[in-house]
Amino acid sequence: MNSIIIHEVGPRDGLQVEKEIVPTQTKIEWIKELISSGIDIIQVGSFVNPKRVPQMADTDEIFRFFNLPENKNDKVILSGLVLNDKGFERGMECGVDMFCMGVSASNTHSKNNTGMSTEEALEKIINIAKSALSNNKKVQVSVQSAFGCGYEGKIPEEKVMNIVKKYLDAEIRNISLADTAGHAIPNQVENLFGKIKELDKDINLACHFHNTYGFGITNVYAAFKVGVVSFESSFAGLGGCPFTAIASGNVATEDLIHMFNKMGLRKDIDLDKVIEISKKASEFFKRELPGVIYKTGPIPEIIQQN
Amino acid sequence: MNSIIIHEVGPRDGLQVEKEIVPTQTKIEWIKELISSGIDIIQVGSFVNPKRVPQMADTDEIFRFFNLPENKNDKVILSGLVLNDKGFERGMECGVDMFCMGVSASNTHSKNNTGMSTEEALEKIINIAKSALSNNKKVQVSVQSAFGCGYEGKIPEEKVMNIVKKYLDAEIRNISLADTAGHAIPNQVENLFGKIKELDKDINLACHFHNTYGFGITNVYAAFKVGVVSFESSFAGLGGCPFTAIASGNVATEDLIHMFNKMGLRKDIDLDKVIEISKKASEFFKRELPGVIYKTGPIPEIIQQN
Repeated sequence: MNSIIIHEVGPRDGLQVEKEIVPTQTKIEWIKELISSGIDIIQVGSFVNPKRVPQMADTDEIFRFFNLPENKNDKVILSGLVLNDKGFERGMECGVDMFCMGVSASNTHSKNNTGMSTEEALEKIINIAKSALSNNKKVQVSVQSAFGCGYEGKIPEEKVMNIVKKYLDAEIRNISLADTAGHAIPNQVENLFGKIKELDKDINLACHFHNTYGFGITNVYAAFKVGVVSFESSFAGLGGCPFTAIASGNVATEDLIHMFNKMGLRKDIDLDKVIEISKKASEFFKRELPGVIYKTGPIPEIIQQN
Repeated sequence: MNSIIIHEVGPRDGLQVEKEIVPTQTKIEWIKELISSGIDIIQVGSFVNPKRVPQMADTDEIFRFFNLPENKNDKVILSGLVLNDKGFERGMECGVDMFCMGVSASNTHSKNNTGMSTEEALEKIINIAKSALSNNKKVQVSVQSAFGCGYEGKIPEEKVMNIVKKYLDAEIRNISLADTAGHAIPNQVENLFGKIKELDKDINLACHFHNTYGFGITNVYAAFKVGVVSFESSFAGLGGCPFTAIASGNVATEDLIHMFNKMGLRKDIDLDKVIEISKKASEFFKRELPGVIYKTGPIPEIIQQN
C-alpha cells in the first residue's frame, strides 16, 4: 500500500466541461500514457445521459477497451462516476473497477444538479454503493460542495459530518470531500478532515480540490498534513466551468505529483510522462491550460555546484 | 502587536524588474493607497545605483515625500532595501523607518549579485545592520536563496543556519528567509523555520516567497503554521524576472491578505483597496498580472441561503 494515492480525474472531470469533444482514440491514447506513468487510479468517464453530456458518450466503450485481455493492466484501478441506477448498470456491464458517486452538502446544488434534495439523493447513492460493494467492486463516495457552495455560500460543518456519518453507518469507509466551487481554505480543510478522522479510525479519506481562488495545492498540502491519503486531480488542471469569468480547474495532477515527489513521496510515478500528456492536451485544446509545472518544468535538482 | 504582519514589497521587488519605469507620482499614489489599506510595512524602494536600476532612481524622493509633516503616517512602517554603506547613508538622509538588507546563502548567487562571497557580504551587512540599530532604526536582515538557488540548485540547511546564527550573535532578531528562485516546497519551509525557531525564542521570523513553481501561497501557509509572523508579498504578484520563460512573481499581497482574512486574521486590512491597486497596476502595465484574487474577487460569503 502506498502512503498516498493519486486519483486522476481529468478524463472525466476535466473533459466533461470542454466544448470540444475529444475523440475516443485520443482519450484512449491519453489514458494509456496516464496508466504507464504509474498513477494509481484513473477516472475514465461518467455514466450520464450521452445526449446531455456528449463529452462522456464513449465512457462504456473506453472501459470495454481497457478490459480487453490485451489491454488489461492490473496495476491501475479504473474508476467511473455514476449518478443513478441506470449508470450503475452500465458500469457493471463494461467493467468498472471502482464506482465513484456522491451527494452535495448544499441542498440548492443538489436540487439543481440532480432534481433531488441532499437527503433524497443520499438514500439513492447509499443503495447504489451497497450494490457495488456486494458485487465486490471498489467504491468511493463523496460529499460535494463540502467546503462552500456557489449557490449557498458557507456550508455548515454539521451538514458534511451528517452525510459522512450516514456513509459510515452503511459501512462505506472510502470517503472523499470535494470542493466543487473552490471555496475551501487550508485551515478549514484541516479542521473538517480532522473532525471526520475522529469518527472512525479505519476511514480512508480522499480530497478533490478546485483552484478557483488559488488555494488548490495549498489545500492538498493541508489535507495531506491531517492524514488524507487519496488525492484527486486532473492533468494540466483541466476542469471547472469554462463559461465563467473565473478560471476554476482542478488541481493539476503534475503539480500535485511534483510536490509529493519533491517531498520524497511517490517518486515511482513518472512525472515527465504526465507533463507530456498535459502538453499534448494544451496542443489539442489550442490554449494554455491552468497547470503550472507542465509549463515551468520541475524545480531543478542541481544546476551547478560551486 | 498584530498576530501577523504584512510587508508589501511590490514598490521595490515588483517594480524593479519591470521594463517600463513607473512615474514617481504614480508610485506615490499607489503607496498612499497601500498605506490607507492598513498594510503594516511598505517597502518603498531600494538604494541602488540609479544608472544600473533606473526603476529605483526616485527612492530617496519618495521617502522624503512621505516624511513631510503633511504626509507622515505613524501607523505604517516604510522600509527600504540597502546593499552597501552608500545606500545606508542615503537611507538615513531621506528618513527610512526600517532598513532591510541580506546576503545570499548561495555563494554563486552572492558573487554574481554583489561581487562578494557570502562570507564577505555577511560581514558588511552585519556592520550596516548594527549602524542602523545604533541609530534607533528598525532592521530586518534576510537570507536570500534560502530554499534553493537558480545557479546552485539545492542549498544545504547548514548554510542558512550558519548565517542566521551570525545574525543572532550580532543581536539582530528580525530575520527573513527569502526564496529568491521559488524553489521552496512546503515541508522544507516547515523544517527550516522550525529549526531556526529553536535557536532563539525571541526571534522574529519573516518569509518572502516567489511563486515560480506554484508553491507561493502554500509556502506562506506552511510558514504561518510554524510560527513565522511577517509575510512579504507584492501587490498583483509583481516581481521576479520578466525575461525568463517562467512566470515567477512574488506571492500576491491581495491573495495573502485574502487567505488570512478568510482564516479570521487581519480582517482590519482593506482587501478591496489592495485589489483596486492591483487592477490599476494591471491597467498600467497593460497585461494580466500573476495575482489571483484581483481577477476572481474574494470567495463570496453568502450568495443565497436555502
